[in-house]
This record gives sequence, C-alpha cells and structure tokens, in this order.
Amino acid sequence: MIIAMSARATEAEIAAVTGVISQAGLNAIVLPGGDRVAIGVASAIPHDLREPLAEQISGLPEVDHVAHVSRPYKLASREFHSADTVIEHKGVTIGAGEVVIFAGPCAVETPEQMAAAAKAVKAGGAKVMRGGAFKPRTSPYSFQGMGEEGVRLLVDAARSEGLLTICEVLDEYDVGVCGEIDFLQVGARNMQNYRLLTAVGRSGKPVLLKRGPSATIDEWLLSAEYILCQDNPNVILCERGMHPIDRTYTRYTLDVSAVPVARRLSHLPVFVDPSHAAGDWKYVSALALAGVAAGADGLIVEVHPDPAHARCDGPQALKPDVFLRLAEDVRRVAGAVGRPR
Amino acid sequence: MIIAMSARATEAEIAAVTGVISQAGLNAIVLPGGDRVAIGVASAIPHDLREPLAEQISGLPEVDHVAHVSRPYKLASREFHSADTVIEHKGVTIGAGEVVIFAGPCAVETPEQMAAAAKAVKAGGAKVMRGGAFKPRTSPYSFQGMGEEGVRLLVDAARSEGLLTICEVLDEYDVGVCGEIDFLQVGARNMQNYRLLTAVGRSGKPVLLKRGPSATIDEWLLSAEYILCQDNPNVILCERGMHPIDRTYTRYTLDVSAVPVARRLSHLPVFVDPSHAAGDWKYVSALALAGVAAGADGLIVEVHPDPAHARCDGPQALKPDVFLRLAEDVRRVAGAVGRPR
Amino acid sequence: MIIAMSARATEAEIAAVTGVISQAGLNAIVLPGGDRVAIGVASAIPHDLREPLAEQISGLPEVDHVAHVSRPYKLASREFHSADTVIEHKGVTIGAGEVVIFAGPCAVETPEQMAAAAKAVKAGGAKVMRGGAFKPRTSPYSFQGMGEEGVRLLVDAARSEGLLTICEVLDEYDVGVCGEIDFLQVGARNMQNYRLLTAVGRSGKPVLLKRGPSATIDEWLLSAEYILCQDNPNVILCERGMHPIDRTYTRYTLDVSAVPVARRLSHLPVFVDPSHAAGDWKYVSALALAGVAAGADGLIVEVHPDPAHARCDGPQALKPDVFLRLAEDVRRVAGAVGRPR
Amino acid sequence: MIIAMSARATEAEIAAVTGVISQAGLNAIVLPGGDRVAIGVASAIPHDLREPLAEQISGLPEVDHVAHVSRPYKLASREFHSADTVIEHKGVTIGAGEVVIFAGPCAVETPEQMAAAAKAVKAGGAKVMRGGAFKPRTSPYSFQGMGEEGVRLLVDAARSEGLLTICEVLDEYDVGVCGEIDFLQVGARNMQNYRLLTAVGRSGKPVLLKRGPSATIDEWLLSAEYILCQDNPNVILCERGMHPIDRTYTRYTLDVSAVPVARRLSHLPVFVDPSHAAGDWKYVSALALAGVAAGADGLIVEVHPDPAHARCDGPQALKPDVFLRLAEDVRRVAGAVGRPR
Repeated sequence: MIIAMSARATEAEIAAVTGVISQAGLNAIVLPGGDRVAIGVASAIPHDLREPLAEQISGLPEVDHVAHVSRPYKLASREFHSADTVIEHKGVTIGAGEVVIFAGPCAVETPEQMAAAAKAVKAGGAKVMRGGAFKPRTSPYSFQGMGEEGVRLLVDAARSEGLLTICEVLDEYDVGVCGEIDFLQVGARNMQNYRLLTAVGRSGKPVLLKRGPSATIDEWLLSAEYILCQDNPNVILCERGMHPIDRTYTRYTLDVSAVPVARRLSHLPVFVDPSHAAGDWKYVSALALAGVAAGADGLIVEVHPDPAHARCDGPQALKPDVFLRLAEDVRRVAGAVGRPR
Repeated sequence: MIIAMSARATEAEIAAVTGVISQAGLNAIVLPGGDRVAIGVASAIPHDLREPLAEQISGLPEVDHVAHVSRPYKLASREFHSADTVIEHKGVTIGAGEVVIFAGPCAVETPEQMAAAAKAVKAGGAKVMRGGAFKPRTSPYSFQGMGEEGVRLLVDAARSEGLLTICEVLDEYDVGVCGEIDFLQVGARNMQNYRLLTAVGRSGKPVLLKRGPSATIDEWLLSAEYILCQDNPNVILCERGMHPIDRTYTRYTLDVSAVPVARRLSHLPVFVDPSHAAGDWKYVSALALAGVAAGADGLIVEVHPDPAHARCDGPQALKPDVFLRLAEDVRRVAGAVGRPR
Repeated sequence: MIIAMSARATEAEIAAVTGVISQAGLNAIVLPGGDRVAIGVASAIPHDLREPLAEQISGLPEVDHVAHVSRPYKLASREFHSADTVIEHKGVTIGAGEVVIFAGPCAVETPEQMAAAAKAVKAGGAKVMRGGAFKPRTSPYSFQGMGEEGVRLLVDAARSEGLLTICEVLDEYDVGVCGEIDFLQVGARNMQNYRLLTAVGRSGKPVLLKRGPSATIDEWLLSAEYILCQDNPNVILCERGMHPIDRTYTRYTLDVSAVPVARRLSHLPVFVDPSHAAGDWKYVSALALAGVAAGADGLIVEVHPDPAHARCDGPQALKPDVFLRLAEDVRRVAGAVGRPR
Repeated sequence: MIIAMSARATEAEIAAVTGVISQAGLNAIVLPGGDRVAIGVASAIPHDLREPLAEQISGLPEVDHVAHVSRPYKLASREFHSADTVIEHKGVTIGAGEVVIFAGPCAVETPEQMAAAAKAVKAGGAKVMRGGAFKPRTSPYSFQGMGEEGVRLLVDAARSEGLLTICEVLDEYDVGVCGEIDFLQVGARNMQNYRLLTAVGRSGKPVLLKRGPSATIDEWLLSAEYILCQDNPNVILCERGMHPIDRTYTRYTLDVSAVPVARRLSHLPVFVDPSHAAGDWKYVSALALAGVAAGADGLIVEVHPDPAHARCDGPQALKPDVFLRLAEDVRRVAGAVGRPR
C-alpha cells in the first residue's frame, strides 16, 4: 500500500500515517519525493486488513490518496496459481485449448422448440445446451421464464441429444431446483449478488460467471473469489459486453480485451457471449469470431429454431443454419490462432 | 410503436410488417418518407405484447429499427397518476415539500457507535436512521455486516432517540428478519434483482430504491414498477451516482439531472445519496446541497461518530459536527428553492 | 513514482528497474511487501521526465504497473498557488465570491434577435453576453455560424446594453477575428485541441475552458496548463456535462462533483453550463441551481428571445421570462450557501 | 420524423405540431395510439431542414420526444452507395478484400530509428508506414513531435523501403507541410474538429479517420461526411477504442462491433487500431486478430525498434519480432474468415 501525502502535509501529519501503520503491526517507509512525500507499507497486509486500513488512512489529514500495490483477490489470481485451470466435467473439458461452445435458446418455451434447438446445438458441435428457465427481465410485464417446468424441458431435450446443460439461477431456491443441471450460470445483473455467488459456490457445480456491464476486471475476479472461497474451483469467466457509449446499433460493447487481460491475471478459463453483447443476430458471428481470435476458451451463443416467434431476445438468436456456419468459422479461426480445431 | 424500414425495403417487405401488426389485432399506418418508409402502430398495444411484438418485427427483413412511442411503465408514470405520491408512515411525511433527511452509519458495529450516531442523527433533524446489517461487499474478505444482531442494535438505538429506521435487505430472508424496521432499502447493485424487488413489494413497507450505477431512468422506473405492482405504492427513488468517466477523485458521478427528470416522469418522491456518489466526505456536502437545489425530496447521508475507525466506508462518512453544519445548510437551500425549511 | 513489480519478479528484474531510475539521476527505494515488491522514486522528477520515465519502466519485464504520486500539472494546481485566482477584467470580477452569469443565445442570427437577447441578459443581471459566431456542428448540413459578421453583431448588441462579450473560437484564425471580444471560449469538443489552447493562451484574453464530455479532471487541468504556460493566468474552468449513461432525457450528465473537486485541486474559478448538460430547457434551471449550491463561481446559460425559431439548440434555450426567474433563484441559492447575493 | 406527444396533449397542441410541419411544406400524418398520439412526417425532409425542424417541434407544448427515421448522413451511407468503396492509391488497394497493414512508430525521433522501423514494417508485409510528426499530447510538458523535420524523416525512411506514408495532421497548416505524405490521418481527439475535416477533405488525399473515444457511430459517419462532401471519396474509418469503464489494464475498450456495424451502414473501408485501444503491447496482438476476425479491412499498428526508449507511447509499441509474428497470425486469421491471405 502506498499513501501519497499532499504537498502541504506537515511532519506531524506524516507521522500520524506511519503511526497507524505501525499500530497495525506493519512496516512504514517514508519516501521523500519532489513536491510531496509518499509512504509505503513494506510488509504483507492481511487480506481482511487491506480495506479497513486503507479507509482509515484515507481519512487522516493531508492524505491525498491511497493506492494498493497488491491485488484484492488471491484464489482467482495467476500469481498464486500459475497453471491454467482445466475444468473436466462429465466428459466435457474446458480450458485445455479446444474452443468449447455452449448454445441454445434464451428461454425454454415448449418441448418442440427445445427438441429442435437441441438438434441444432448438437449439429454445430456444441457440448452444452443453454436454456433459461428463470429470466431476469427489465419489465415486470415481460415473460419471466417457465421455472421448474423449464428446467425439466431443458434436461430432457439435452439428454436426448447427449448434451450437457447450463441454466441461469437467480437465487438459492433456483440452485436447489437445478439439481439435474450440469453447469450453473450467474447472469451479468447478478455478478455482485453475493448471496447467490455463495450459493452457487456451495453447489459444487461448475459456474459460468458473467461480467456485469459496468464491472471492472478486478470486481469480476472478486466475484469469482466469492465462488472459489466456497471450495469450488470450477469457475468460467464470461465477458458479455460493457455498458455502451452508443446503444443505437448494439446493446452492449463487447470488451474483447477482457479476454487476454483476464487470462493474464487469472488462471480461470474465459468465455465470450456474443449474443447479449450484440443484441442483434447480424453482428453475433463477427463478435464470436473476434472473441476466439482474442483467445477465448469458449463461447455461449443463443440459437433458436424460430427466432421470429421467440418469447425472449429473438432478435439476437441465430437460426440453426447461421449457427452451423458460425460453428464452422469458429473452428477455422481457432485453428488459425493455434488451438485444436 | 414506429418501425423504420431500410431504404432498400420492397413493397412485400413492408407488407410483411403490416401483416404482423394486423395479426396482433392492431392498426398499421404506412408513412411514406423521403428515402425510406416508416410504419406506425395506431392502436393501444397491451403491455405484455409490447416487447414480443417489437422483437418479432425487429427480426423481419429490411426492418432498420423499431422505436417505442409509449413508455414501458405505467404505475410509476405521472401520465397515469398525475399527483405527487406522498408517503405518510409512522409520523414521517415524504414527498409533501419538506426535505427529509435519513442518516446514520454505513454499517452497524457496536451499541456505543449506534448510540452516538443516533444522537448525531437526531441533532441534525433527521427523521429516519440508517445502519447496514447486511452489507454487499465487493470482496469476500471485507466485513459483511452483523446480520440479525445488527438489526436489533439499529432498532434499539433509533428508538431511544425517537427515530424511525431504514435497513438495506439483500434477499427475501433479510426482509423477514427486518420485521421491526420501518423502511426497507434496495441497494444499487440490487436494482435489477427482481426476486428482491418482489419480496420488498410484498412486505408492504415503504421502500427506498437506489438507482444502479449504469441504469437508465426507464430501467429504474421499471424496477419501481416491480414493487408497485405488488400493491405497494410507497416507493422512494434514490439517485446515488452513475458509473464515472473519472474515478480518480469521486467514486461515482451523481446524476443530479435525474432528480428533475424522475420527478417529471414519475409521481414518486426522489432522494439523493451524496455519500455513495462522492465516496469522500469532503465532497458530500456539496453534492447534498446540489441535490436539494435540484429539487430532491430528501437525502440519505452517512454519519459516523468516528469515521477513522468505521468498519465500512469510513472515508465517505461525515463526522457529527460536519453533519450538523450540512443539515443547517440544507434547510437554507431548501428555503431558497421554495420548500418549507 | 511507485512501481509495483509482479509477484514473480526476480532480484535481477527488480535491479533493472532501480537501475533505470538511478541512471536518470533519481533515488530508488525498494519496498518489500507481502506478495510483491514495490519500488519508490524518492526524488523530485522533472516534469519533462515524468512520462518518458514511466513509459520506459512500464516496458521492463515483470513490472506490473506504474503509478504517479504527484500530479501532472503545476501552474493549475492549488498546491503551488494556494490563493483563489480572481479574474478582474473590464469591470467584471470572477472568482471573488459573487456568482457571475454569462448568458445569451447559442448562435448569433440577426441584429433583432441579438438586441432582444441583450435586453434579457441584462435584465437577469448577467455581466457577459455569449453568442456563437463559429459553430462546431456534428453534421455538415447544419448551420455553421455567421462568422465575422456574427462577431460584429454580438459586440454591437452587448455594447448597447453595457455588457461584455464571450465568443467560442475554433482555431487561430477565429482568435484573430475576435479582437473586440472580451472573453474567449474553448468548447468541449476542443478541450484537447492543443493548437487552439496555445492560440487562446497567447491572446492574453481570459479564457473559459469547457471540460470535454469524456475528459478526466486531470486531463482538463492539463488543458488549462496549456493556456497558463503561455503566461495567461486568466482561465475559467467550465463543467458542461459528461458523456451520459442514459441519453434519453438529457444530452449529457452534469458532473456536479467536478465543481468542489476542481476548486480543491486548482485555484482557478469554476463555472457550470447547465444548458449543454441538459439539452432541454425544462431541466436547465435545476442544474444551474445545483451548480451554484455545489459552489460554482458562475454560470453560462443559453437564453434566446424566441427559442422555437432558433437556428441552433433552441430546445435548450431559456425564454427571457424563465431566465429572469432563474437569475432570481440563483441569487437566493447563492445567498443560502454564503455567497454575496 | 416521428413526434411522440405526451398523454396529456390536447387537440390544439397536436394541431400546433402538424401546423409547423405543413408550414415547412411537408406532410403530417396523425397516428392515434393507446395512451398517446404520435405524428409522422410523410415526406422527404431536406437535409438542411432536418435539425432545425426537429428542434422547433421539440420546443412545442406537450411534445414528449422527436425521433428521426432517416439517418443524418448521405454520402457515407450504404443506402445511397451500395458497393464497397475501394481506395486505390499509388499501388495500394484498400477495401477490396485483402487485410492491409499500416505500421510504424508513434513518433518520428531520429533517422536511425526510422530506418530500423521501416525495415521492420516492410518485413511484416505492411504497405504504409506511419510516424507522428505533430503529436497531440495531454500534457504541455510532453514531447510534441518533430514537425516538418519529422515529415522529412518519415518520407525518407519509407521511400528507401518502397513504402507509402501516413501522418497525423492537427490543422490546416500541417496539411500543407504534408505535401509528400500519401495518406493523412485525423486522430481521435480531432474527430469533431470540423475545420480540420474540411482541410483534409480539400487535400484530395485519402484520409484515415479515427473514431473519438466517446463518439457514436452516427457521429463518426457524420465526420466522414464532412470529408466526403469536399468531393474527396477516399475515407478510411478507423476504430481505436472507446472510453473505458475500466482503465486499470487497458487504456480504451476496443469496440470490435463497430467493424461489422460500420461496414453495414457505410460503404467505406474500416480499420482497427489495436495499439491505442490496448495501450499495452501485451494485448495488441489479441485485439488486432479480433479486429481482423470481425471483418476489418486493415490495421494500423505501432512498431518501434526499441520501445523502451521511445519518446512517446513506448508501452504500446510492438518490437519488430513481435510484429512479424503478428503479421503472420493476421494472414492466417484473414484466411480463416475468407479473405485473400
């Protein structure tokens, strides 16, 4: 931790800062600069002292700002776990090189829709089928998902094609209902729903954790830390678009740089969701390929047998033939960046 | 609803759009423009048809974009409820002109801290005491609140000064624990936690609903709609800062224009939280006064008897004497903008 | 300057960093931390070495990040010029306590419009009249201003009411044409047009420098530094709204916290432009009063005798009677926050 | 143009709007909706009437909002020029399928640096060499470029390797100095410097137009329109990163969706600048490949023979060997997405 004093700080004000550091059992070093003095903490700061200490020092007179040298997460950090996390779950391997595709409709609607979707998902070589049973919707008047019945339909459709399943959960209750689901998903709006993070952590299932649209990378990794510290090592990070400067043509702005940055800071696999980022099927393939070219370990893509009649997010769903073409392109781009095709 | 076709759209493609509108039992009018044709829906669109119809039409060939003419919320809208909502609850009146202050520490810590805080809150003329018992924290290693015990301490401290209480809740369980709390608070991170919105709606208690840091005004009012449609009319909107362009000196950017905009669009009272917006006590008073000058119905302010030793957000807490001075300034500015002092 | 090494950094990699610092004639101190080492530069870093040195060190192996302890500007900083800058120019005093109003139409259009506007501006107690002669417009098909003829009309209208003038300039040529103009304005789009900043600096005239809609406070003060380092001490900072998260109801988001932050960091007076921030006259007064309550030294407000027929930005212009009412409210709020009325 | 009235609008207020439309010689159609009435303009609106008419109507009583159906640009729009623009200039072809690379150092520094850079640029298969002679720098204390002498060194170095040249210009004067330069560049900070856009338009040279970090796509295309309407058809659009939500690890957020969106809306070729977007060489290659996978027609990349001693933006420059590897990867990814390798 580094504390920058203001140029006006007196000797006594500097001593007040070093005093607080010493009282915490840590070592303070004063760095005389040009216009102002900085003070460094030259010892390991226990994780639970990090924020309180910074906040206490921030409040002292003539402290200009406090900056952290170390990162706030540990279990999610590559500094303490240098090898890539590889998730092996029921025959699907994530994070070992191959670009893995999760696909399916935004929402579960009918057995027929799910059967058709499962065929398309399978045909494109996807390994895991998605389908929302609990839908967080901006308006209370929008379709909120089929609930438990939806979970059932998803599991049935996926099994008949030999696919695994992923389902978004909104609270602890949903986690219980999703007993037969293989992967749990935490949506972007819930990235900082800490009760939910704890619940999915305790489930022991692999979790796909979407990044919130205005979350920093550090905040995202701290949310992963909530899951990891429940002794659940199987977290997949998923970038799905940042709050956009321009909402006219796309719903969010895919932060494609989050892929190499997260892979550098963390050992966890990183996916990209091009469907929610784009919000318009016409741009989904370009974003999916961009994600793969940037190094993503996988994609989660919305596919619907009949997007025009989807009950949710139809405009961003790919038709089966477009998805097939994308899946082929993904293999080619994956090969071009040195991944197994 | 207005549908803009692309300049390339053929007669048949235009007919496809009007066909979908007619099939929904609605009236379509074709507006020949210069380069392109627009199509208007000239009937009332039922609320539950609004999104699905827009999405279905978006997917048709050569549809450039779909725009809504009406707003997506109804109960929260001033168009359907023109008089200001006045919340009268246990002797406190909100939305009737007077600028009401809610104040207290970020987190409940000890009986002594709460007793001292309650005295300061009372001295400043605040009517409702805040105190966090369930803290949503970015890091799993930060203090997460005292839980049920915290609720108890808050109620005790407030009662001994004749104050009402407000407490943030994170899920349905917390709502149950907060039986003796007078006002419930939904935090910014939970603005789109729809399960929670439904739970606080059902509680029947007045709810202070913070705006998410990247939420639009329409999204905020739709979240209010989730509470209102549980037959709970007592929602207080609270602006607490948008995701900032510049995080160097403040944590968020208070969107002070949200006050007059929300008051114009909605009949609900609007508060401002200058403490979370600033993140630094030095700027809290300026933001509080700005909010009042812009027409806010109230403030929620963090006050701590000893900010340097607060377990949470100490840097943004006002000391009692600073809060007293602010409360006096608030009365003067309120008077200057025509509110009872 | 503080350099945080990654946790993997070796002794040799640390020595490479301290070596570069020593070579620059500066003192390096190694701060052993918990997981990682930090290195502090314990000497004054010359201004022209600050960026090159940081960039050079950033490129060395296992350097995690480089943070500055000192601020990048000097002339604009309150640390080196603690007293408020007071601009006295042709009988108008800015920065001495009184809230000074600049007002007038977005664009100069006709002698009649300017005469009517000047009367309204004068009636509201404004001291300086604005009027755009050179308009930066998003579209090449929009009205680009009357140019030299517009400057003439502005000067004539203002003089007949005993007002001073301010005019936005777009390049060095315009500065030349504005010989009779009293204050020059640099618009938000030009905040980082360094050729223009140098030109207005050399003019010797007081300059109102608007903050760009995505500029940090430090970038804004660095732009002021460009003017100040031309030996022109008379810079007025002007906040006019940040790029918004929600563009639906306002054009920008006024960052009202920029007022107390800029006044704390800098000695320069700070104005607020509520008209461009709002983009809608209905919200202009609320933002103006918020700015004054937050401590602004002045306002620049758009006023037009007939907004419905304005050639530019009519929707955000106040009619004369609304402006008069606002001016009265400004005086009351100014009094409430301890400024001379 | 569509005008949405508020739900409170009276017949007379609706008539006021249709009256203004008729007076402008245009056709108004009233669309009765559910809660509120909309009014459509059913005729071609002349380009110079578009904004004034919208602004005039916005100011009328009980007008809720005004939305445009047509786009504000014409020459840049694919609706009026459906074939891709192919720029053929001195033997280099842009926009015809091949991914074209522009590369070179941020700033021109010395003849030796430029000679080494030119060799690296050539070796990577780039066709055009960049090198800044006029540098817009945030701080007045940073290196501002070598000016005319820098132009000379760039031309000499490029010629000796048979490369064309591109140089950023800041105002009309620089355009004059760049007589021997082949392509002109307008930087992100200058995207809305309309005097400069007009000057580069008049130069007749192909122009690479960077998108401003908070510019919408429509604003970007309107800036292109400023150049195109000077009878200069050779504009290359260049995405270089949006103002970021998280500045910790990258300087900007590359909006990779801008590539397919701009290519759909416009016929102009679209480049990506991964160097400024990342601000850190470690992430440049991932962003470059993402851009190509998303359909970019070319890249502009910073390459420096000795980044550690660069006078400007060293941390984002690629060393020659990294650039060579990237150029090879670009060819492979280009092939994977169906472009000639």
